[in-house]
Amino acid sequence: MTESFHATVLTLFPEMFPGPLGISLAGKALEDRIWTLESVDIRGFARDKHRTVDDSPFGGGAGMVMRPDVLDAAIKSAHRPPRPLIYLTPRGKLMDQTRIRSLAAGPGVTLICGRYEGVDQRLLDAWDVEEVSLGDFILSGGEIAALALLDATVRLLPGVVGKTESLENESFEIGLLEYPHYTRPDLWGTREVPEVLKSGHHAKVAAWRQAQAEEITKARRPDLWARYAGRKDD
Amino acid sequence: MTESFHATVLTLFPEMFPGPLGISLAGKALEDRIWTLESVDIRGFARDKHRTVDDSPFGGGAGMVMRPDVLDAAIKSAHRPPRPLIYLTPRGKLMDQTRIRSLAAGPGVTLICGRYEGVDQRLLDAWDVEEVSLGDFILSGGEIAALALLDATVRLLPGVVGKTESLENESFEIGLLEYPHYTRPDLWGTREVPEVLKSGHHAKVAAWRQAQAEEITKARRPDLWARYAGRKDD
Repeated sequence: MTESFHATVLTLFPEMFPGPLGISLAGKALEDRIWTLESVDIRGFARDKHRTVDDSPFGGGAGMVMRPDVLDAAIKSAHRPPRPLIYLTPRGKLMDQTRIRSLAAGPGVTLICGRYEGVDQRLLDAWDVEEVSLGDFILSGGEIAALALLDATVRLLPGVVGKTESLENESFEIGLLEYPHYTRPDLWGTREVPEVLKSGHHAKVAAWRQAQAEEITKARRPDLWARYAGRKDD
Repeated sequence: MTESFHATVLTLFPEMFPGPLGISLAGKALEDRIWTLESVDIRGFARDKHRTVDDSPFGGGAGMVMRPDVLDAAIKSAHRPPRPLIYLTPRGKLMDQTRIRSLAAGPGVTLICGRYEGVDQRLLDAWDVEEVSLGDFILSGGEIAALALLDATVRLLPGVVGKTESLENESFEIGLLEYPHYTRPDLWGTREVPEVLKSGHHAKVAAWRQAQAEEITKARRPDLWARYAGRKDD
């Protein structure tokens, strides 16, 4: 039997997990043990009676920084290489579907959720931690970013998304944003479904969808369009 | 008294809310009624006895599409303009701290969480829905993206982040990724805190941090660096 995909989350708020991942697709997969999840309370590795995990930054400034020694003890206890060790931070490399696919193909992942101003840099250096960002915005901690990373990864594990749903033709799988969708009712108020989609002509439908996907990508994401157009020309 | 920031979430999984937003910073702010949250079950607006919310796509293909009429009824019932109406989808414009700041300055937001292949395009057209993407990856639904958007927004509401924490000098607030942080212990194993941070020389500390922030932005996010350098030259 294959080992399940195993996710370890190091956090000051272990009660946030599985949270939304205990419901719906990811929750069903968790029940079926397609993946397993362990959330580890970083505070349990503090060594003083106040269970201190953070302290003021050297050099001054507002906010607190997570101590390297406490987090180090948590990592040593819970992290199992060769699983990647990822710190969720806006300073990281942007998470994308390519990285998600490679995570889903591996044995699991250990996620460090920061709080306060962040984590002592020496801890990141010592463990050669991979820094991953959800996007150019600031969350109150890494926990919701961890939920997003795990949700995106778990749905790619074999057996999670049923055959009625599709992993193909999705945004980013072909390098374009997805074409628009239409379903019943055929006439909604005064709004009709585009004729071509009711034509039964598969090639015409495919051509229309491709043109729409190109159109919307050009309009909304010139960065993706440039990459796609470049690839096509190769 | 000022009205609280009000978030309405339209979802097939209302039990996912408040979830992680009921804990920590956002949870405390919810208790204090700095913001209010209502999650609305889209399925409650289905009109047949099976409470159907989706149907097959016109033009064929795998997956199901959320019907426009059911979602329209949910929006009519729960959405209150001038709050923005946002659909979380990988086809949207990338969410960033600028959009988050403008949301936090407003009266609230209504969020549509898609599932399956997505939402009928006519619904998006009819309501002139703003489409927002968390990033170039695929989640199993809009719910975790909604949690991220709300967490990022709520922490900017007055009174949520305490004075000991800082909203200044954060990544994106000045257009650069943040400089590295260090805290106690001063010597961790063989790793020391950079001397300059212990110098007590404020100007030198500031210069070091600025140089580090520029360095890391150049290395990790040439896109942000180009924007920052362009702005500086103006």
